[in-house]
Amino acid sequence: MMGGVQLTFTKGHGTENDFVLVPDVDGELDLTAEQVRRLTDRHAGIGGDGVIRVVRTTAAAEVSDQADRAEWFMDYRNADGSPAEMCGNGVRVFVRYLLREGLVPEAADELVVATRGGPKTVRLDDGMPAVDLGEWRMVGGEQALAAGGDATVRVIGLPDELPGLSFDLGNPHTVVLLPGEPELAQADLSRAPVVDPVPAHGTNVEFVVPLAPGHLAMRVHERGVGETRSCGTGAAAAALAARAWALSGGGEPVDDWRVDVPGGTVRVRVLGDHVELSGPAVLVADGTVTL
Amino acid sequence: MMGGVQLTFTKGHGTENDFVLVPDVDGELDLTAEQVRRLTDRHAGIGGDGVIRVVRTTAAAEVSDQADRAEWFMDYRNADGSPAEMCGNGVRVFVRYLLREGLVPEAADELVVATRGGPKTVRLDDGMPAVDLGEWRMVGGEQALAAGGDATVRVIGLPDELPGLSFDLGNPHTVVLLPGEPELAQADLSRAPVVDPVPAHGTNVEFVVPLAPGHLAMRVHERGVGETRSCGTGAAAAALAARAWALSGGGEPVDDWRVDVPGGTVRVRVLGDHVELSGPAVLVADGTVTL
Repeated sequence: MMGGVQLTFTKGHGTENDFVLVPDVDGELDLTAEQVRRLTDRHAGIGGDGVIRVVRTTAAAEVSDQADRAEWFMDYRNADGSPAEMCGNGVRVFVRYLLREGLVPEAADELVVATRGGPKTVRLDDGMPAVDLGEWRMVGGEQALAAGGDATVRVIGLPDELPGLSFDLGNPHTVVLLPGEPELAQADLSRAPVVDPVPAHGTNVEFVVPLAPGHLAMRVHERGVGETRSCGTGAAAAALAARAWALSGGGEPVDDWRVDVPGGTVRVRVLGDHVELSGPAVLVADGTVTL
Repeated sequence: MMGGVQLTFTKGHGTENDFVLVPDVDGELDLTAEQVRRLTDRHAGIGGDGVIRVVRTTAAAEVSDQADRAEWFMDYRNADGSPAEMCGNGVRVFVRYLLREGLVPEAADELVVATRGGPKTVRLDDGMPAVDLGEWRMVGGEQALAAGGDATVRVIGLPDELPGLSFDLGNPHTVVLLPGEPELAQADLSRAPVVDPVPAHGTNVEFVVPLAPGHLAMRVHERGVGETRSCGTGAAAAALAARAWALSGGGEPVDDWRVDVPGGTVRVRVLGDHVELSGPAVLVADGTVTL
């Protein structure tokens, strides 16, 4: 309780997906899993969905192969202390921090950030950091789409057996279409939706309601976490599913989506086989924390 | 989102009952309910169970009648922005802050803090701030005790109709005795326990398991909030109930209790018709926040 390590921190969030950023430019900090858990503790610490250590790529052995492309490494840790490959909202908040601190030139058209999931390209979209999430894939392909889905999903509060369409964005997603906003509100996400067939490594489940062409509302249950205020790859999967359904219904292809999540609104752009996420990235507080 | 007000803050907690302290020594800050909600927002703000404005009593008109006894006013606001009379763990963290900042002399035996619930006396108990919570009262008196309780309580996960014994500590509490720690773990506090007769203004409900003379474990459901990691007056009510049960069973009177709550351990001392709460009070982080 009365530990003595003092760390500098910044608290930030992207559509209320929130992070504790810890600057460690020269990679001198040995941030332990226990320290991460204390930082993300919402009552005894600062609180956040994860911790982001800000470190120069040349000072981080595990991503040294990205040093020629990316000056900065987003060392993302989950709230439980485990390292993570990537976080779509996290990398956007990370870039907001680099810009504010003058660690990257403001005039640059785009910026490459090193992550455990490989280098990620970020540009500014009307002042908001926009990240290329990389390649996406509809798991069951056109066949699944024609069949109405590749899985069934059951969730408390809604009639059983809803069809789900699965996407791979580096992490797994299963998207469920709901008829309207009342149903979206009724879904009880306090327990994990049951997906059949059970995915080997679990899946994030998105419930979506199309509001207009290029506009949808979404709630998400993140695997191993529960319902969250926002999920970047989840918003991308939701837009990709809505786009696929619209296309299969004979509609015009829409590649630019506004996705309303409980924590705000993000923009998803489908760029061929890549998909881009943008939205607000806010730095809320700065200070020192004692662990 | 992009507001411009910058505030200095300290984040602290007492057994994980956590607060955002905002120094405003000369009472120049007009802290709005909206600002309090932003500060206590666990995703978009700092996060806390409440906000404590630190202000000189002479600079706060609403407690000016306490100025001759108390130099400092704990202006406590609930997370929803509404003002509150008192908070047992809050006032202990408040005193920890005054001591660290040198706003009160360290050598003082005790200290009086102004609150909306009147002046509160705080002393140091082996280095831990200990607050006199004031007078307590067993609502149904000896008759209720002899009858096993003055109310029945139903909670999900446990057999229906458990007897409850009610106490008034400025706020209402109903305490339920459980046979052991498995039952304590089984109680599902994700919904409010149902108390009969229904208290006019609701009640906090404590579930307790005696572990040894002067030692008990407790979980609490706070009215209007839900299950929390700790509740100061709740711990006091739990100790008072356990003491009453022990006395009615012919046991020795025990006035010094250790109460284990999910967020840690507090000490409750029964001082005649008053009751005192002590325990850890930790300052975790300091910084500036933009609202």
